[in-house]
Amino acid sequence: MSNTTSNDLLDKQLLWRYATKRFDPTKKISSRDWQSLEQSLLNAPSSFGLQPWRFVTISDMDLRKKLLPHSWNQPQVVDASHLVVLAARTSVDPEYVDSFIKRICAVRGMQEATLEQYRGMMNGFVASLTAPGAVENWCANQVYLALGMLLSAAAVLEIDTCPIEGFSAAAYNEALGLPSKGYSAKVVAALGYRSQDDALAGLAKVRFPAEQIFERR
Amino acid sequence: MSNTTSNDLLDKQLLWRYATKRFDPTKKISSRDWQSLEQSLLNAPSSFGLQPWRFVTISDMDLRKKLLPHSWNQPQVVDASHLVVLAARTSVDPEYVDSFIKRICAVRGMQEATLEQYRGMMNGFVASLTAPGAVENWCANQVYLALGMLLSAAAVLEIDTCPIEGFSAAAYNEALGLPSKGYSAKVVAALGYRSQDDALAGLAKVRFPAEQIFERR
Repeated sequence: MSNTTSNDLLDKQLLWRYATKRFDPTKKISSRDWQSLEQSLLNAPSSFGLQPWRFVTISDMDLRKKLLPHSWNQPQVVDASHLVVLAARTSVDPEYVDSFIKRICAVRGMQEATLEQYRGMMNGFVASLTAPGAVENWCANQVYLALGMLLSAAAVLEIDTCPIEGFSAAAYNEALGLPSKGYSAKVVAALGYRSQDDALAGLAKVRFPAEQIFERR
Repeated sequence: MSNTTSNDLLDKQLLWRYATKRFDPTKKISSRDWQSLEQSLLNAPSSFGLQPWRFVTISDMDLRKKLLPHSWNQPQVVDASHLVVLAARTSVDPEYVDSFIKRICAVRGMQEATLEQYRGMMNGFVASLTAPGAVENWCANQVYLALGMLLSAAAVLEIDTCPIEGFSAAAYNEALGLPSKGYSAKVVAALGYRSQDDALAGLAKVRFPAEQIFERR
């Protein structure tokens, strides 16, 4: 059960968060904080637990500069302390499901035979996604869920973030060699510390009235 | 900047979280906690800030029982303290964008004329999503991001959750009258407190090795 401290901390930090447009390039996320942020991605939930994702952290500034024009020249791409490309699997085949089953057995000391029903459920569900792009869209949903875990974790640690959809997935995929590994870039997260002259930081958060967003039945 | 306490709290709570299959039906989320959870959804980020979503909280137990067979009879649907259906907009037309522009002006005391470029960007982006279902998929991505914010907030408050994809969106949509309002159910979240006899609670979390999930460039 929660106490007032965690409620207050959470409420405050989620209000404090905003999509940071100007990062202070001199401020870097500490290794301790980065470890927590990676854990928030690693431990994010996903459908069936399949983790159909790959997270590419780009430190190489030459690579970040190369990606800049493919990101509408948004300065976050080069100014933020860390840049993460969140990529989704483009397919989920029985071999991938098998690798997951084997991982469950390894972590939990189980026999594969006890997981045949679970294997069948997963393969059956994936096979039901017959529309073009449906499997990749489903994987992309999981990637956005993981992004939510990351942004939330960063807010709790008072680390600024900017989720970025304004980039060329084709250019990122090529630069990172993602397609040959079976992944496609879906969304980018810049993380670090806001610049003191980011005018957006001081603006009120714009949300529709709660009664328009929430419905109670 | 963060301190060790928030790192430890966050690491611990995100490990503590698991997809709860058995909720204790006698334990209810307090109104103070529920307020924090709703705020995590309300303040979730979305592309352009458009909030293309609707969150339906179902307290009516008759309705939850009616939805149970459309949810693979997963007991979380009736046993959890709170059940939230996360729905995405099925279209984002210029009228909706206009309502968002008006909301920005109201909240920030701005003139619409100063936002014409932003309006054009949003309408232009939506118009570029020409593939069948592309707008709805884009909105669904935002909904999953919001789900991540909700699950993470709940974990910090030590409230159990189960994200549920195993339900009939068509049946939920019909029961909740979502299509006529321009929304479609994408994912469901059950929230409450784990039952002491949920065998899954004690199992080790299964994740692929970090080096398989993370790439450093």
